[in-house]
Amino acid sequence: MQIGMIGLGRMGSGLVRRLLRNGHDCVIHDTQDLAMANLKAEGANTAKSLQDMVLQMSLPRAIWLMLPAGRVDEVLATLVPLLTMGDIIIDGGNSYYRDDIRRSAELHAKGLHYLDVGTSGGVAGLERGYCLMIGGKANIVEHMRPIFSALAPGVATAARTPDRVLQMLAVSDAEQGFLHCGDHGAGHFVKMIHNGIEYGMMAAYSEGLNILRHANIGKLEVKPEHDAETTPLRNPEFYQYDMNLPDIAEVWRRGSVINSWLLDLTASALLKDPDLNAYGGQVSDSGEGRWTLLAGIEEAVPMNVLSAALFERFASRGRGDFSNRLLSAMRSEFGGHLEKPSASAPESKK
Amino acid sequence: MQIGMIGLGRMGSGLVRRLLRNGHDCVIHDTQDLAMANLKAEGANTAKSLQDMVLQMSLPRAIWLMLPAGRVDEVLATLVPLLTMGDIIIDGGNSYYRDDIRRSAELHAKGLHYLDVGTSGGVAGLERGYCLMIGGKANIVEHMRPIFSALAPGVATAARTPDRVLQMLAVSDAEQGFLHCGDHGAGHFVKMIHNGIEYGMMAAYSEGLNILRHANIGKLEVKPEHDAETTPLRNPEFYQYDMNLPDIAEVWRRGSVINSWLLDLTASALLKDPDLNAYGGQVSDSGEGRWTLLAGIEEAVPMNVLSAALFERFASRGRGDFSNRLLSAMRSEFGGHLEKPSASAPESKK
Amino acid sequence: MQIGMIGLGRMGSGLVRRLLRNGHDCVIHDTQDLAMANLKAEGANTAKSLQDMVLQMSLPRAIWLMLPAGRVDEVLATLVPLLTMGDIIIDGGNSYYRDDIRRSAELHAKGLHYLDVGTSGGVAGLERGYCLMIGGKANIVEHMRPIFSALAPGVATAARTPDRVLQMLAVSDAEQGFLHCGDHGAGHFVKMIHNGIEYGMMAAYSEGLNILRHANIGKLEVKPEHDAETTPLRNPEFYQYDMNLPDIAEVWRRGSVINSWLLDLTASALLKDPDLNAYGGQVSDSGEGRWTLLAGIEEAVPMNVLSAALFERFASRGRGDFSNRLLSAMRSEFGGHLEKPSASAPESKK
Amino acid sequence: MQIGMIGLGRMGSGLVRRLLRNGHDCVIHDTQDLAMANLKAEGANTAKSLQDMVLQMSLPRAIWLMLPAGRVDEVLATLVPLLTMGDIIIDGGNSYYRDDIRRSAELHAKGLHYLDVGTSGGVAGLERGYCLMIGGKANIVEHMRPIFSALAPGVATAARTPDRVLQMLAVSDAEQGFLHCGDHGAGHFVKMIHNGIEYGMMAAYSEGLNILRHANIGKLEVKPEHDAETTPLRNPEFYQYDMNLPDIAEVWRRGSVINSWLLDLTASALLKDPDLNAYGGQVSDSGEGRWTLLAGIEEAVPMNVLSAALFERFASRGRGDFSNRLLSAMRSEFGGHLEKPSASAPESKK
Repeated sequence: MQIGMIGLGRMGSGLVRRLLRNGHDCVIHDTQDLAMANLKAEGANTAKSLQDMVLQMSLPRAIWLMLPAGRVDEVLATLVPLLTMGDIIIDGGNSYYRDDIRRSAELHAKGLHYLDVGTSGGVAGLERGYCLMIGGKANIVEHMRPIFSALAPGVATAARTPDRVLQMLAVSDAEQGFLHCGDHGAGHFVKMIHNGIEYGMMAAYSEGLNILRHANIGKLEVKPEHDAETTPLRNPEFYQYDMNLPDIAEVWRRGSVINSWLLDLTASALLKDPDLNAYGGQVSDSGEGRWTLLAGIEEAVPMNVLSAALFERFASRGRGDFSNRLLSAMRSEFGGHLEKPSASAPESKK
Repeated sequence: MQIGMIGLGRMGSGLVRRLLRNGHDCVIHDTQDLAMANLKAEGANTAKSLQDMVLQMSLPRAIWLMLPAGRVDEVLATLVPLLTMGDIIIDGGNSYYRDDIRRSAELHAKGLHYLDVGTSGGVAGLERGYCLMIGGKANIVEHMRPIFSALAPGVATAARTPDRVLQMLAVSDAEQGFLHCGDHGAGHFVKMIHNGIEYGMMAAYSEGLNILRHANIGKLEVKPEHDAETTPLRNPEFYQYDMNLPDIAEVWRRGSVINSWLLDLTASALLKDPDLNAYGGQVSDSGEGRWTLLAGIEEAVPMNVLSAALFERFASRGRGDFSNRLLSAMRSEFGGHLEKPSASAPESKK
Repeated sequence: MQIGMIGLGRMGSGLVRRLLRNGHDCVIHDTQDLAMANLKAEGANTAKSLQDMVLQMSLPRAIWLMLPAGRVDEVLATLVPLLTMGDIIIDGGNSYYRDDIRRSAELHAKGLHYLDVGTSGGVAGLERGYCLMIGGKANIVEHMRPIFSALAPGVATAARTPDRVLQMLAVSDAEQGFLHCGDHGAGHFVKMIHNGIEYGMMAAYSEGLNILRHANIGKLEVKPEHDAETTPLRNPEFYQYDMNLPDIAEVWRRGSVINSWLLDLTASALLKDPDLNAYGGQVSDSGEGRWTLLAGIEEAVPMNVLSAALFERFASRGRGDFSNRLLSAMRSEFGGHLEKPSASAPESKK
Repeated sequence: MQIGMIGLGRMGSGLVRRLLRNGHDCVIHDTQDLAMANLKAEGANTAKSLQDMVLQMSLPRAIWLMLPAGRVDEVLATLVPLLTMGDIIIDGGNSYYRDDIRRSAELHAKGLHYLDVGTSGGVAGLERGYCLMIGGKANIVEHMRPIFSALAPGVATAARTPDRVLQMLAVSDAEQGFLHCGDHGAGHFVKMIHNGIEYGMMAAYSEGLNILRHANIGKLEVKPEHDAETTPLRNPEFYQYDMNLPDIAEVWRRGSVINSWLLDLTASALLKDPDLNAYGGQVSDSGEGRWTLLAGIEEAVPMNVLSAALFERFASRGRGDFSNRLLSAMRSEFGGHLEKPSASAPESKK
């Protein structure tokens, strides 16, 4: 099947490669020539412009956008006038699902079809396959099935859920690794929640491993400060462990209740750099975590874990600094407490 | 190798079976005759009493306790006088690591060895293998290696971490699925944090799926109440999705960033009972989550996610009810707000 | 000065009374005749309809809306066509500040002025005065100064901030209890954050008093369950206190760091009903707490306390029930754990 | 009445001054001569040593310790041997209530009485009076009543709770500002929770004001980055406010639902230094917040707000840095995401 791909970053390039390996015909475009040249060598047809892409493709065209969420509308503004009724646009990036609802209506008015496809897999997706969460009309999803099948991991990449076997259920799309989640926006809605969960899981591992890292605090604080500002550690004998974090992450990978792909990556990162000195700890967030909270707030459901995970990232980037200074200012006002110099912190990066 | 096993609940029975399958000699005891009878048929030697167990075993004995944390000390009070210098006691349950530190010293004074072994795997451990986190002296860990090797999943149950292959590292114990974490208590310390992380991950999935479940709120609230007590949903058109949770959990199992064994179990549970009507939502906690927080507080490290996960369980059991009533009481005092009847909640169990 | 008041609920009636006591001329309207009759007896001029109100007033009219946020637009739809260029509309309710921005533009196009006035004070405002947070154009705020002055508490109701005295600063509007916060929407933005903070403070008191209430848990759990599901309380001797919550709230009212008006109300509520049996603990939220979080998320600032306070309210209304059931389902899957009956909870309402 | 005071820091000196002003006889000791000299000039009797203090006092002695929690035991080791049966020791500092339980038993065995007195008021206590939360035996509390009465603010410092007037209740100790909370440890238990609540309230104000501070983010981010790492602000027009925080804190002081003494201090701090440049934002915690959580965890009650307030302080001191670096490391592993330089943060201290 023929597909156009606009945007050849880490994700877009991976998608194209996986499609090429499965025998699909890819017409590709990116503003970076190098990204195109590499994929051309692997069999893709390159397009110098959106117009060039459109001219190379047969009807009905299916064009997949793999762009930063903030750039989709401007690319559509150029692309849409070039298209023909019945063509299909797929947004595989991390767009806000509300934009999908709006765009699908705008495109529908022009006779164009639209699918929103939340795509998970990261740089490993080329080999592992991509998990695809799809929103839009069922007949268009059906039309694109060969592409989704090729991108998805396939049922063999994990053991079937036992009751599916017991009930002798046929293998479903979900078990292949792609799912038509509902009408326009449903794909990105599910992907948004997926990422919200991802933030929570990442924070769970990070907080837990941070406690393990500080399990030697009873050794370090040999002379705890006995002043009104700080309570001494009451039982230093209980915090005498120098934990080997790379080995601990590794041992959890097999047989434990908490093994996961994120844990595999954690073990990999800690093996390479046990103190993680290569990182400063300014953790980005790319939008889905925020949108997850916006949805949950409007639905009025509690989300203490998902919100905490996002706010830790905000705080890591210094966005709570004024709040912290105000706490110190209040302490000064009511108790005459002076701030302690931060240099005393024994936990700082080594 | 010969091992004694006291406690044949879900976990203890699984350990014995896996050891028997690997050719080890198991002397077992439990107060429940049925548990013993089943395992006897599979090749275990049963002991009617602790004394009987001790008499059946050759020196140095290695006896594994697989008991609720609250029962370990009383069993030790009976068992220890029956033992001989050089015997080894292994606590494989979910004991508090501080008890390990105390017990190991008490037993050392009597010439007995002690290992604490945090054991993860649940009812699936018999087939998947158990992840073992071990604290104690290195020579005793070495002595018990055949047992740990048999219980652990083995390196083949997951792909090796890439850099271990690239660096041509020999397969380590951690890769087999067991790890000597440090001195007495280190095993249960690591297991404690493991469970703290587990709580966080479980909460991340649960909160996220709860948001998906309520993604149809725009349909339900067709007549939002326009009163001073409740803000109407501003954009019901954005919450029109009836999400298929069993399929969504299933699709995430392959290729996504959030796949994990807990997700496998979630998909299984949702397939069997999509509305989870079999459950009331009174979530237990068995101690490790609390101890994780106690450790983190003494170490003075932030744990917003892990604490939120634990507190959600407390609240699920009604332990915040007085706090909530006080909030309503304050609202009544300052604003004359009356409580709304709970029956209006559209999200309650169907 | 003459003012029209639409909406005579708890807040609207209080505003009118305070204005009447200060000699202002109030033309009032409400769909409830009783509310009008009471105020008529105290000197207000009643209007049977919005048209009647408009006819009774001299130009430029100043009409204050004190309505649920969800009803403002429909009232404006009727009112606006009756008005004359130069008239002033004041929204004193808990509107979303984004609606202020929109409405002010719409009204401006018709030659009408608009102020948004966040109004705090509750049922006590009649006596204590109202704290007014105002958004809009400076000249309109200036025009309305007599009304704001009358409603606000006045500088004498609290000691002046020391540095204002030391620097011999003139008494500012803020010290009177009203403040022009900025352009359209700024008043409700500040009020929104005010309410977000209020949620956080209320939760802080409630959580703390809940811990005190359970300080007798060492007495109650005389036979802690020794099973794998529950960790026994390790030191019951430390939880033997039957705390007198009404007295504790009272003692904090004088001299402590945490005294506040909310604490005054807490002491009052606990004195009347120490077990708070009159309340079920279904805590409402009226919108500002949610909007506070939406703003903070878009600003990317951490808000762990404010979000936790809101989510506790959501959970109190059962909106996390599915999430909790899923946690129990996962526990059943991996560990074969059965849910405990909720009846065992010793902390439930007496 | 005669009282000995050991420890003349900010709090101890204030207590002595207030007692002197009320005509009590104070024998004082501190290792800092200057602290003693100042109070001698105001009428206190100085003691060069604990022995000297004991010799100057008549039986039964009442000696108040106002020391950092970590120093109480060492001072008691010196003091106790000098005392006579029937003497009274009062710990007015921020001791852990479990130490009170232990100490009271140890002192009881020697015929000495013990009271634990949680003391709130800070540097303002000299003028406002101190809020006293007392644990111990009722007859000893009764004996010390003149001292507690003198230190406490007195009923006139706040309006009586309405129902106390309506029911014509006699003025209670709690209304004077001191309270016998229960047996040994109860005073510090209540003070501990008081401080836990204080942390929560402080965080509520700080987080809320931080949102207000960033309400101009729509102006600052004129060129939002359009890349895969960051979601652009969708509606910059809603974040155009330059909020005047000193005025906002001031306006809330009168008539609002959130006025409090902490707000008075906040208004004072912001007036002096609106950007709080004098502070670095490394917020200390002195123990009670941690102990509050330990108690709540053992009681199994939810404390999302109180815990979040404490963890914000831990994070402000860099204790979550490793956790944050691990988050960045995971993002690099699965998505190839590079950390952004922190310099891009527009919110950093000006």
